[in-house]
Amino acid sequence: MKTRIPLFALIVISFQAFSQHTLRKEINFPDIEGYHTLKCDFHTHTVFSDGKVWPTVRVDDAWRMGLDAISITDHIEYQPHKDYIPTNHDAGYEIALPHSHETNLILIKGSEITRHMPPGHLNGIFITDSKKLETEAVRKYWETGETDTVRDALDYMKPIEEANRQGGFVFWNHPGWASQAPNGIKMYDVHKDLIKKGLLKGVEVVNWDYWYPEALDWCIEYNLTVMSNSDVHEPSGTFLEMADNTHMPVTLVFAKERTEAAIKEALLAGRTAAWFEDKIIGKEEFVDPLVKACIKVNKPHYVSENGTKYVLVENLSSCDFTLVNDQQTLHLKGDNSVLLTYGKDESEKKFTAKNVFITSDKNLDVVLRY
Amino acid sequence: MKTRIPLFALIVISFQAFSQHTLRKEINFPDIEGYHTLKCDFHTHTVFSDGKVWPTVRVDDAWRMGLDAISITDHIEYQPHKDYIPTNHDAGYEIALPHSHETNLILIKGSEITRHMPPGHLNGIFITDSKKLETEAVRKYWETGETDTVRDALDYMKPIEEANRQGGFVFWNHPGWASQAPNGIKMYDVHKDLIKKGLLKGVEVVNWDYWYPEALDWCIEYNLTVMSNSDVHEPSGTFLEMADNTHMPVTLVFAKERTEAAIKEALLAGRTAAWFEDKIIGKEEFVDPLVKACIKVNKPHYVSENGTKYVLVENLSSCDFTLVNDQQTLHLKGDNSVLLTYGKDESEKKFTAKNVFITSDKNLDVVLRY
Amino acid sequence: MKTRIPLFALIVISFQAFSQHTLRKEINFPDIEGYHTLKCDFHTHTVFSDGKVWPTVRVDDAWRMGLDAISITDHIEYQPHKDYIPTNHDAGYEIALPHSHETNLILIKGSEITRHMPPGHLNGIFITDSKKLETEAVRKYWETGETDTVRDALDYMKPIEEANRQGGFVFWNHPGWASQAPNGIKMYDVHKDLIKKGLLKGVEVVNWDYWYPEALDWCIEYNLTVMSNSDVHEPSGTFLEMADNTHMPVTLVFAKERTEAAIKEALLAGRTAAWFEDKIIGKEEFVDPLVKACIKVNKPHYVSENGTKYVLVENLSSCDFTLVNDQQTLHLKGDNSVLLTYGKDESEKKFTAKNVFITSDKNLDVVLRY
Amino acid sequence: MKTRIPLFALIVISFQAFSQHTLRKEINFPDIEGYHTLKCDFHTHTVFSDGKVWPTVRVDDAWRMGLDAISITDHIEYQPHKDYIPTNHDAGYEIALPHSHETNLILIKGSEITRHMPPGHLNGIFITDSKKLETEAVRKYWETGETDTVRDALDYMKPIEEANRQGGFVFWNHPGWASQAPNGIKMYDVHKDLIKKGLLKGVEVVNWDYWYPEALDWCIEYNLTVMSNSDVHEPSGTFLEMADNTHMPVTLVFAKERTEAAIKEALLAGRTAAWFEDKIIGKEEFVDPLVKACIKVNKPHYVSENGTKYVLVENLSSCDFTLVNDQQTLHLKGDNSVLLTYGKDESEKKFTAKNVFITSDKNLDVVLRY
Repeated sequence: MKTRIPLFALIVISFQAFSQHTLRKEINFPDIEGYHTLKCDFHTHTVFSDGKVWPTVRVDDAWRMGLDAISITDHIEYQPHKDYIPTNHDAGYEIALPHSHETNLILIKGSEITRHMPPGHLNGIFITDSKKLETEAVRKYWETGETDTVRDALDYMKPIEEANRQGGFVFWNHPGWASQAPNGIKMYDVHKDLIKKGLLKGVEVVNWDYWYPEALDWCIEYNLTVMSNSDVHEPSGTFLEMADNTHMPVTLVFAKERTEAAIKEALLAGRTAAWFEDKIIGKEEFVDPLVKACIKVNKPHYVSENGTKYVLVENLSSCDFTLVNDQQTLHLKGDNSVLLTYGKDESEKKFTAKNVFITSDKNLDVVLRY
Repeated sequence: MKTRIPLFALIVISFQAFSQHTLRKEINFPDIEGYHTLKCDFHTHTVFSDGKVWPTVRVDDAWRMGLDAISITDHIEYQPHKDYIPTNHDAGYEIALPHSHETNLILIKGSEITRHMPPGHLNGIFITDSKKLETEAVRKYWETGETDTVRDALDYMKPIEEANRQGGFVFWNHPGWASQAPNGIKMYDVHKDLIKKGLLKGVEVVNWDYWYPEALDWCIEYNLTVMSNSDVHEPSGTFLEMADNTHMPVTLVFAKERTEAAIKEALLAGRTAAWFEDKIIGKEEFVDPLVKACIKVNKPHYVSENGTKYVLVENLSSCDFTLVNDQQTLHLKGDNSVLLTYGKDESEKKFTAKNVFITSDKNLDVVLRY
Repeated sequence: MKTRIPLFALIVISFQAFSQHTLRKEINFPDIEGYHTLKCDFHTHTVFSDGKVWPTVRVDDAWRMGLDAISITDHIEYQPHKDYIPTNHDAGYEIALPHSHETNLILIKGSEITRHMPPGHLNGIFITDSKKLETEAVRKYWETGETDTVRDALDYMKPIEEANRQGGFVFWNHPGWASQAPNGIKMYDVHKDLIKKGLLKGVEVVNWDYWYPEALDWCIEYNLTVMSNSDVHEPSGTFLEMADNTHMPVTLVFAKERTEAAIKEALLAGRTAAWFEDKIIGKEEFVDPLVKACIKVNKPHYVSENGTKYVLVENLSSCDFTLVNDQQTLHLKGDNSVLLTYGKDESEKKFTAKNVFITSDKNLDVVLRY
Repeated sequence: MKTRIPLFALIVISFQAFSQHTLRKEINFPDIEGYHTLKCDFHTHTVFSDGKVWPTVRVDDAWRMGLDAISITDHIEYQPHKDYIPTNHDAGYEIALPHSHETNLILIKGSEITRHMPPGHLNGIFITDSKKLETEAVRKYWETGETDTVRDALDYMKPIEEANRQGGFVFWNHPGWASQAPNGIKMYDVHKDLIKKGLLKGVEVVNWDYWYPEALDWCIEYNLTVMSNSDVHEPSGTFLEMADNTHMPVTLVFAKERTEAAIKEALLAGRTAAWFEDKIIGKEEFVDPLVKACIKVNKPHYVSENGTKYVLVENLSSCDFTLVNDQQTLHLKGDNSVLLTYGKDESEKKFTAKNVFITSDKNLDVVLRY
């Protein structure tokens, strides 16, 4: 007869430990007119492809670092851990989901479709069934290095169409990655064709510790959505050390609500910007109101005898700004303020924000008017 | 005949350098019902007594560190730099004032009356003429070590009365300072007498890197105002290294407005608390609403199948809180959030805030109710 | 016919990325007479039990943080990831080993034997075949909660004997862990019996963010080896945030060489100490020479007219020391120096090192003699 | 009759407080063959001209920040504090000297000769009598803006000759300072003449938060000594915030001993280099051996099956290095190590040190050979 005794009190009530011991530090970016400014990372990995962490770590890290939404996007084809972990394209999402509910993080289902260039690597997010993105011939080729026909091994159309069929939003990852673009970044006809067919809607202007100025211009020319993702494989803390950075790359999404559906709507409408190192990168129509919301110019608090006005300029965001004109260079650190003096008849100062890019070679102009 | 040529272009337009290059980082403490929470330091020194910095440095440091108001309170009697700097009791205020206007810092005129214990050292702030606090016999004694009568050398009543006559607010500094209280902190009859006469209205519960629990009890018993000051002599950055701290001691003043007059009214009404290291110290009537304003308990964002509710608790202040009960210890770092879980039928959790003192040996109770 | 084309250039040449981008920061502890001072962590987890990281991350983190040796000690019995990862007790070591060679880290094979108290959890390290530590009845009980007999489910002797048979060094983990010692830490007869039989040779005086003073006394009384381990499950960076610490717990091993064999010899001989937060904890015979090596008192560099001697005291270690006597409190931060003054006829100063424990309630005495 | 009572126990035994509470953190730069590498700052200010701190603060800050030697070099002519502090050109040295003895810092007497461009501002150090550098006509002009003849007001020859007569070493400060070089940095005939006469022997290649590449070329062409100084007016901690830096500019002096005389000999012999931000700047003959001493390439600790060798490269200095070649970019942070892989038949790697300048536009080549 079987005996039943209470299970060992192992207390791996990991959430409890998590909730008591970890801290969330918000990233500050003000909302813009009509939209919430959400902080998102749509490209991350776990042990279920070539990442180094358990899926819940992605949620923990994102929570601690102040994000609103992430997607776990393991490679469908590249499975270097398969000797130890059976391929399971849905595991990352499945395991991380409960923890995302607990932490109020929006978790978006995704996968990375992994091909030679072109088209290179592409993420499909907001998909519903990752397994269907797997192509038998490609899988076999990856495992054995053999293929019946080259065409089979390279086929990319099926998973891209499948991702779109599932309602997914597909974007092109790290277009200038040296391994796939040894002669420099370029857009192929393959991509133009995918864009024309409505199958490819965004491109990473930022990936890991690089940004691709040309990709920003493509976003403008081809009406693509600006994406800025970490592509993190390591624990996020290690990523920051390796990339010598103080925050992860973030896609700022200007969404009507803080919901998964609203994020999707915003991505489809192209309402995003990149936050990378001390840079804000994106289309002027979104970057301009964002920067205006970030930098608050107060009324003068003092006027000296000779008419000089003393003005407090506050940076309401976590982003460091560098504002330059002929007269001066202002380093306006995140969450800090500076003092400015305005002459007797002066009520505005014009600067160029050297850290804000609205095309590959154009910075945003900023007027500080009190 | 005299020739006039343009003065050397030395460009010691120090304000311009200051405004372009230094940053202010706010200290976060929410306002409480009916009052602004102002961050103040009423005890600092400059080269005009035994301090190590030019008066404008006090303003610069206070501005950078997020304060609203300071007082420069050089010793009247102790003048160790007098071989190089002629005694000038008004110089600190005079030199710092223009820069305080430029930086929108409230500068309060003050002086430190320096005697043996009792009564020890006392600050008079909101005074109008520091020179009148100087007693000839005391000055002479300080300079020569000689005195006509001991009584003359020790006289303290005149400057205290004079400070009060000028409308000053007088408080007792570092009552437990080892040099003057080698056998431990105690209140003398001299102090009780001064209090009874309405000449002494506050006491430093915090000075430099010490806090005096007994002094908190005196504030309650004798209706004194809680003061928490740095007594900084060095540059503030060096102070922080020496005291192994991340912020200066601050007197939180609950004032009707951000004006000098409103600060004075609040000090007279006893509406203050101390922020020292990770501690908030003061009378319960002010500390309780402050802590309630600092810790925001959100509505549950998720309820699990078994009814567990997940709640985000935000620390809206720069102060680190340590909340303890039988079940758990919460380290709620400044400007960070934690997650808490509430049971199916639970809507509040009771804690003791180990870092918040409302008497010498009593911590504030805190209820986290969503 | 099969075609062979070059494998996708995925460039997950992770070592190359690692070597170019990550940095190692040494932990400084001087050697002591006759021995190298090695920095080790003998208790860590990976995804192959309830840890959150891939085994190579343990090597990466240890390398970056300046360790010499680690052991990966996944639970034999507790396998919460088994729905996704087939149980494989040797996987952690197998996967991490090549990377340990590359980084010159000593990787020691180990496993955690996981039982109710007594005896609680025990690590076997320097073992050769983890799989043999698995007991069928226990495994079954863990998976189903059912057991033929309670005795079977609780049996602990077999794996402990097996670990010793393999040449393993077995020690008791977190003896005061609240989940297994709700009424406080205590040593059971079971432990005494294991010690007497020579099957249990060490105990964790430090685990995660706790230290157990009683366990230090046991080490002295029962001649056990002092162990100080992280028991890290998360990425190490997250551990440090959760434990609010700046370094991981470290077992300092005084070894004849920097080899696995020498570490084993040292553990068997009991030549260790714990470094935890700012504390050094261990038997006086090892802690005393270590502290003497850490704190260097220089010859006076200046003698004033009145005979006062000025002396530079250097902390050659990464550990912060707090030295106290009647006169003064010295905070001697890691890798920093302080100045001391010695009187005319004084050539030594006696202190108690408040951060150095040689029994549960006794600090090391330190003489600073120039 | 006079009475004598013990002086008030004010305990401004500031050294004692200093020695107990402040910490010195060494700057790490290895010695080079035949010379000690000393860390020096030959340009600082105090309240005795336009500086903001008491002279002892310069010693305190230098001690804490790991320097070996400093010079206090207040302006002779520019005395903006004279309404409060009587001009006293020797006060800075006089006041700071005892504290420099206590802290074992080498204090070098100096003054800043302050003129229009050319020749601009020049420091005379190792002088013996600052007062003799004052020119009556210039002083009067500074005070009143009036002068009998323009020539008198601008005269610079007398103080330069006087400084040299006293055995002083005279160098040109911030040659490219925007206020005096609005059209860009250039060397005037005045300077060439001074150099030819042996009256001017060095130039600041670094001042505050700028470096002047052209000045490095002048050092080579005219055999001038490379100087790198802070010109700090504020407390050093504030300087670091304003200049957004983690250390002060340092002149590395390669001296036969750690004495004032040896520093002077080294400056006369031109044996210096600049450490500024992450840059080392100087003549190749000194910079090359320094960098070789900083970067230690160990023997391979592991050779993989395919012959790849794994090598630890240690940075023994506090300076961050950036080494670049066609293959890779190495960020070798101060006091950290990296791992490198060498191919089967490879025993050296060639890099260019992007942070090390040996002319205005040439970086040092570095070979990492094990």
